[in-house]
Amino acid sequence: METPLLNTIDSPKDLRQLSTEKLPQIAQELRRFIIDAVASKEGHLGASLGVVELTVALHYYFNTPYDQLVWDVGHQAYGHKILTGRRAIFETNRQFNGLSGFPKRSESPYDSFGVGHSSTSISAALGMALAAQLKGDYTKRHVAVIGDASIASGMAFEGLNHAGVTPANLWIILNDNAMGIDPSVGALKNYLTKATVGKKPRQANIIEALNFHYTGPVDGHDLSALLHAFEAMERVEGPKFLHVITTKGKGLKPAELDQVRYHAPGKFDRITGEILPKQEAHLPPKFQDVFGLSLLELAQQNDQIFAITPAMPTGSSLKYMMQAFPQRAIDVGIAEQHAITLAAGMATQGLRVFCAIYSTFLQRAYDQVIHDVALQNLPVVFCIDRAGLVGEDGATHHGIFDIAYLRCIPNLQIAAPSNLIDLRNLLFTASKKLDTPLAIRYPRGRGRELKWQQAFKTLPLGKANLLKKGTRILILALGSSVYDAQDAINNLPENIQTQVGLIDLRFVKPLDTELLAQQIPAYQHIISIEDASKIGGVGDAIQDLLVQLKYPGSFVKLGIPDMFIEQGSIAELKTLAKIDATSIGRQIKALAKG
Amino acid sequence: METPLLNTIDSPKDLRQLSTEKLPQIAQELRRFIIDAVASKEGHLGASLGVVELTVALHYYFNTPYDQLVWDVGHQAYGHKILTGRRAIFETNRQFNGLSGFPKRSESPYDSFGVGHSSTSISAALGMALAAQLKGDYTKRHVAVIGDASIASGMAFEGLNHAGVTPANLWIILNDNAMGIDPSVGALKNYLTKATVGKKPRQANIIEALNFHYTGPVDGHDLSALLHAFEAMERVEGPKFLHVITTKGKGLKPAELDQVRYHAPGKFDRITGEILPKQEAHLPPKFQDVFGLSLLELAQQNDQIFAITPAMPTGSSLKYMMQAFPQRAIDVGIAEQHAITLAAGMATQGLRVFCAIYSTFLQRAYDQVIHDVALQNLPVVFCIDRAGLVGEDGATHHGIFDIAYLRCIPNLQIAAPSNLIDLRNLLFTASKKLDTPLAIRYPRGRGRELKWQQAFKTLPLGKANLLKKGTRILILALGSSVYDAQDAINNLPENIQTQVGLIDLRFVKPLDTELLAQQIPAYQHIISIEDASKIGGVGDAIQDLLVQLKYPGSFVKLGIPDMFIEQGSIAELKTLAKIDATSIGRQIKALAKG
Repeated sequence: METPLLNTIDSPKDLRQLSTEKLPQIAQELRRFIIDAVASKEGHLGASLGVVELTVALHYYFNTPYDQLVWDVGHQAYGHKILTGRRAIFETNRQFNGLSGFPKRSESPYDSFGVGHSSTSISAALGMALAAQLKGDYTKRHVAVIGDASIASGMAFEGLNHAGVTPANLWIILNDNAMGIDPSVGALKNYLTKATVGKKPRQANIIEALNFHYTGPVDGHDLSALLHAFEAMERVEGPKFLHVITTKGKGLKPAELDQVRYHAPGKFDRITGEILPKQEAHLPPKFQDVFGLSLLELAQQNDQIFAITPAMPTGSSLKYMMQAFPQRAIDVGIAEQHAITLAAGMATQGLRVFCAIYSTFLQRAYDQVIHDVALQNLPVVFCIDRAGLVGEDGATHHGIFDIAYLRCIPNLQIAAPSNLIDLRNLLFTASKKLDTPLAIRYPRGRGRELKWQQAFKTLPLGKANLLKKGTRILILALGSSVYDAQDAINNLPENIQTQVGLIDLRFVKPLDTELLAQQIPAYQHIISIEDASKIGGVGDAIQDLLVQLKYPGSFVKLGIPDMFIEQGSIAELKTLAKIDATSIGRQIKALAKG
Repeated sequence: METPLLNTIDSPKDLRQLSTEKLPQIAQELRRFIIDAVASKEGHLGASLGVVELTVALHYYFNTPYDQLVWDVGHQAYGHKILTGRRAIFETNRQFNGLSGFPKRSESPYDSFGVGHSSTSISAALGMALAAQLKGDYTKRHVAVIGDASIASGMAFEGLNHAGVTPANLWIILNDNAMGIDPSVGALKNYLTKATVGKKPRQANIIEALNFHYTGPVDGHDLSALLHAFEAMERVEGPKFLHVITTKGKGLKPAELDQVRYHAPGKFDRITGEILPKQEAHLPPKFQDVFGLSLLELAQQNDQIFAITPAMPTGSSLKYMMQAFPQRAIDVGIAEQHAITLAAGMATQGLRVFCAIYSTFLQRAYDQVIHDVALQNLPVVFCIDRAGLVGEDGATHHGIFDIAYLRCIPNLQIAAPSNLIDLRNLLFTASKKLDTPLAIRYPRGRGRELKWQQAFKTLPLGKANLLKKGTRILILALGSSVYDAQDAINNLPENIQTQVGLIDLRFVKPLDTELLAQQIPAYQHIISIEDASKIGGVGDAIQDLLVQLKYPGSFVKLGIPDMFIEQGSIAELKTLAKIDATSIGRQIKALAKG
């Protein structure tokens, strides 16, 4: 790739040496650089392409890092990283020990606030701005760049509502491309859509009602329009708002035309943009697809089924049901709190509601799970996607706390299918009869069962699955750790293999105390394994049981240790956490005889 | 009290038999009934007085419970309870085994959705409304009554943003009295304040921008205006919004004049409204006041201290610092998510931010604690008020999950002072130097130390406090359970007392493993006690340690069992959960010798 001018930019300081006439070339080279990098290394594409000009304009106009720039979510911050001293190592993006895919404070002084989850930027930048003024600095500028999907989330509204009554030197830049990962939804989006470049959405607008000075909309791909808008805003005191209209995927035709697919397209041809075929024709499907396709089948049979996703129709594969039953499967946008209480309201009327939500995002609706669903004992089904380590998205996105934060909630049952068929059957079981809320957590990525589409079977709630009997060491594995435990056992010498028993716990709560109490006494060592925080996880529940049983043998608890885990492949991260097959095998050998 | 007409109303059906001319009398008697009941039995006053006419109008106009009515928060629902068959037992309000202080599904078919925490009503009612339409019922009406403080919360915005793009038969009634428990804050409030009866806030308003049909503002104390507004709205299809202006405390002069104090005034004179003096001149202060006054002292000494409360300046006693340093202590309204990320933003700039938040409401900001504070290892101090059982507010408000949901978060330290002086010293310690976030959880109500205002002392982080040595039984108590353990020990016969050792754990995380490892082996029995969920609590951390130490003795874990606990006095509820002094004493006796 040839990016001669960009290659001279080692920091925004270098950028600010250039005349404005040179900026379009920088933008062009930056776009080229991003396309080339993501084409071969994978990552998030469309969002960063959409803000190339905005990124250049921001670092050209503002005195970063003294002026503080907060990118909401951070999918769009690749250009920012490349301009702020990370061009040479950008090829390590999202890799183990490489750059994070999101802005991260420990990575660069230009990353003023770590992001990953949406809608935090206004609150964070406001906090910085108020702190500056408290220190007597009224000239320092604080800029939050937030998309139209993120600004519709409740947390962003809370930030706007507070900022509007402060004198903060806060600049909010709405990057309005009518898209999140999937198309944006909701009344605010419809309202914003009425804006076109140069034409405000109605005269007295929502933003002005919240006491912001509103500028725009301006064309976010017009560098000089952006710089002029900044200059004009400079004269306004207090919180100000710039409405920028951009095209997600800008500059790569296929990415502009299929914005959902090109959000994170995998490998593609750097010139044509054509997505390269993966060698996966005969691979078993992802847990996500088994969820989405099985729920669709169930919905065809049962018209009481309703499904909700907060902004992840594609990622969760709820899109299948949404296409077939648009009245019964909906995307409510980045609104996790609303999604769960909406489900609770529907459940009071007898609907069987399935909420598809990533484990890490369910943290956003924790109170609603407790207060609106569990306390009222409403039979909502939480389909907790991307539970466990999620890989390249890293520390902000791992779904490793869910067992700890859900296990303490009365009335809630928690399942963790270890394979595609159990997932399918748990969905079926949940669709039939349920007296309490049920959480079903399953991992990101592929299962191992090619013939997953078998006839539905009821799985008894709270029952574990004895997979293998042994003589000395009993492994109690949960969810994706069952595959790892099986791999570990298969790799052992035969004389050790025979010593090892394996139970797929299937349920975190209630534990199958009957089966466990029957099996445990026959073994001298118990090992529990889960792809979740060791603190508060299923291992703690087992430890409780062992104390009750006055179990005299040894107990080893494996799980995610008490630390934040950064990005990498899931395999690399499982190794780091010592819950991979090799680590499990090592543990078994240490306990085995002979 | 004389309420002859009200006495004939056993359900809204009876109400709907009356001619509209009789409604003012019903309203008058209902107001009298509420005042009389709360004057002697305590409870929430101002909110219910403010909606007397609205309550009568709603049940008169709508066909409840077929039409579904959702009260946001529910402080204002006393009139609703009295009109819907609970007049005769209303004197049991908020008592053990009595009526809940909030609407509750299991209590009445008129309570279509259980509430307690704010801003859930729009989502819940929308869920019901969409469910009805899915079943083909387009005439059923769904009404959410929400206050101006609650509607400014992010979750409510998420509900509005979704509702505006649906055809739901949803009625949102904004009960605008410019108050939550404390005065409302924020840009939306300033915007709404521009409305007066008959005069919309600007022409194209926020609500209409979100695609609601807007009616009002109408005088919420004018029954006939309310009924006319309902009739006019009937002709509008889809989501509609009625802006009602009311006066909190309406009809009791002192309650109108001092709305904060009369939110829940305690006992008062039923005629004059004068609040009756409590016999508490020589009682030790509440934990809340020690927090508020100590933080004020610290803020006087250290200008880097900043404090934030989401809508609880009075309840948390942050009001003291807010009065003295209005630039450095702020109420951000019902915006828990924003509050925590705002704190994180400030902490990046070196401020030492104290967030005063109730344990049950921190559930609303769980993701922000993980993603914005702990992951970035920012030294925010969470002052977690009303941890443990809170008494009369009941199941929606107990702060019993915090240890379970916080203990799994890396970087976060968690303290639980057992007394007023430790609380004070922990605040001091946190104000000085902190490399990580710190949570300090403390209970609702009074401590036991009259001379609490002692010179500040640093408490070493992660260190427990050995209070008493024993010979056979070691009690490891946390927070408010230390008082209970002490009471239990003091009530034992002397020969048993000498057997019992007591450690005040002071920290949940890190545990003082050094002291514990040194003490534990000398005892045959260990008992852990905490006023939090037994699942995931500090008892689990101790159990981990015992396994590591290969402790051969017995272990008893006391804490809140796996069930939702309803309302009652804290003493009654501790007894129910078997963590009161008597239960602890019984446990000790069962293990003691002789």
